Amino acid sequence: MQGELRITHKNERSCYYFDNRYTRFMRHRSKSTASPRRVRPKGERTRNNILRAAADLASLEGLEGLTIGRLADELKMSKSGLFAHFGSKQDLQLATVGMASEIFKDSVIRPALARPRGMPRLLELLERWLRHVEDKVFAGGCFFTAASFEFDSRPGPVRTAIVEAMRQWLSTLTRAIEEAQKAGHINADLEPPRFALEIYSMAVGAHWAFGLLGQRNALKNARETILARLRSESRAQGNGTTHGDVKKA
Amino acid sequence: MQGELRITHKNERSCYYFDNRYTRFMRHRSKSTASPRRVRPKGERTRNNILRAAADLASLEGLEGLTIGRLADELKMSKSGLFAHFGSKQDLQLATVGMASEIFKDSVIRPALARPRGMPRLLELLERWLRHVEDKVFAGGCFFTAASFEFDSRPGPVRTAIVEAMRQWLSTLTRAIEEAQKAGHINADLEPPRFALEIYSMAVGAHWAFGLLGQRNALKNARETILARLRSESRAQGNGTTHGDVKKA
Repeated sequence: MQGELRITHKNERSCYYFDNRYTRFMRHRSKSTASPRRVRPKGERTRNNILRAAADLASLEGLEGLTIGRLADELKMSKSGLFAHFGSKQDLQLATVGMASEIFKDSVIRPALARPRGMPRLLELLERWLRHVEDKVFAGGCFFTAASFEFDSRPGPVRTAIVEAMRQWLSTLTRAIEEAQKAGHINADLEPPRFALEIYSMAVGAHWAFGLLGQRNALKNARETILARLRSESRAQGNGTTHGDVKKA
Repeated sequence: MQGELRITHKNERSCYYFDNRYTRFMRHRSKSTASPRRVRPKGERTRNNILRAAADLASLEGLEGLTIGRLADELKMSKSGLFAHFGSKQDLQLATVGMASEIFKDSVIRPALARPRGMPRLLELLERWLRHVEDKVFAGGCFFTAASFEFDSRPGPVRTAIVEAMRQWLSTLTRAIEEAQKAGHINADLEPPRFALEIYSMAVGAHWAFGLLGQRNALKNARETILARLRSESRAQGNGTTHGDVKKA
């Protein structure tokens, strides 16, 4: 499919081909390939199910509107039943951020960390981020993008938890870029934290256009733009190798 | 200052120099250069002052949390006094979106439309957008970015008003790109709506890193990245002109 990602390691310090093999590989990975988890006791499963619903609700209606009363309505549970799990609105918000973080790690980060260091891992992080918006892993789009803009001016423990999760995400991207530099896959002159923000910005902007304006092609376009940006930086890296053979995505 | 924008039109269909003259020009424009406005009656001024405060409050705490009660607390006014201006929470939200839109037009769009068509106008739009976040024209950062992610999954008249404002913004950017293409300032092969979203995404991502993570240099970096992107597209335009003389910002 046009604009999707394929990557073929050509040689140790040379260029990458980008086409759609990479994505086809991803598509064949089903959720069942995730590492098996321990069986959780019923109380924990109930709590997790509640938090899963809370993360969806917060992605739709905002984290500040996530009260025990609102969630009880949504789940058709009693407020007292929910109070048994979470003593206050803030406890519920913090637990929801924790659950959203686990879901995000399962959907985006952990599968990417299973890929080889360098360009394959970096591309998988970005592809999975775009796909978790496209596939509505959270009902309202990216939980953390919404929560970031909602809480950026609201100091307190909830904001701190969101900041912590987002710092972890940016450092995961940054580390993947550093690894790609070490592997000789992209330009060693780039500043990794800055480049991480640059390519992530394209994804956030696409989320905005997709979620608000209904631009169906925004995520596909972001994918192509990110690829073109990575391609230009792998080309700059070439040092005398043939650059003409970096294909269009 | 490093990373700021200067632009010198070199010749009709050739390259641009980018350095800091452009920004110095902007700095010399004070608010008093805005076109004079009619004197408004007192009731209208009161209503506008209320809405100005409402837009700030919404940028800090979210538009959904903007109730007549919350705003009355903030302004130390009676709820009945506010009800005289706005009959319902939704009326207040819609009027606040309208006010935010006027403030945004005054801070970003109108001054840019006073600049010559082509690269000068496009750069001024982007520079003013970054600056309205940096200078906290709205207390909590960009009103519309926050409102976009808050309302993208909340159908209704408020979402419709936000979408309308954001479509206008994207088409203003798109038109500026088309004009820059017609003037021969940037590559005629670019798709203007797509390129508009691409460069705006850098600004939104920088807002995210600045507002949430406190990255003081995020806006400066976005400015440099946008300039580099525009430079690369004005270079592609060259058709045989000397490209080596496009300076670093």
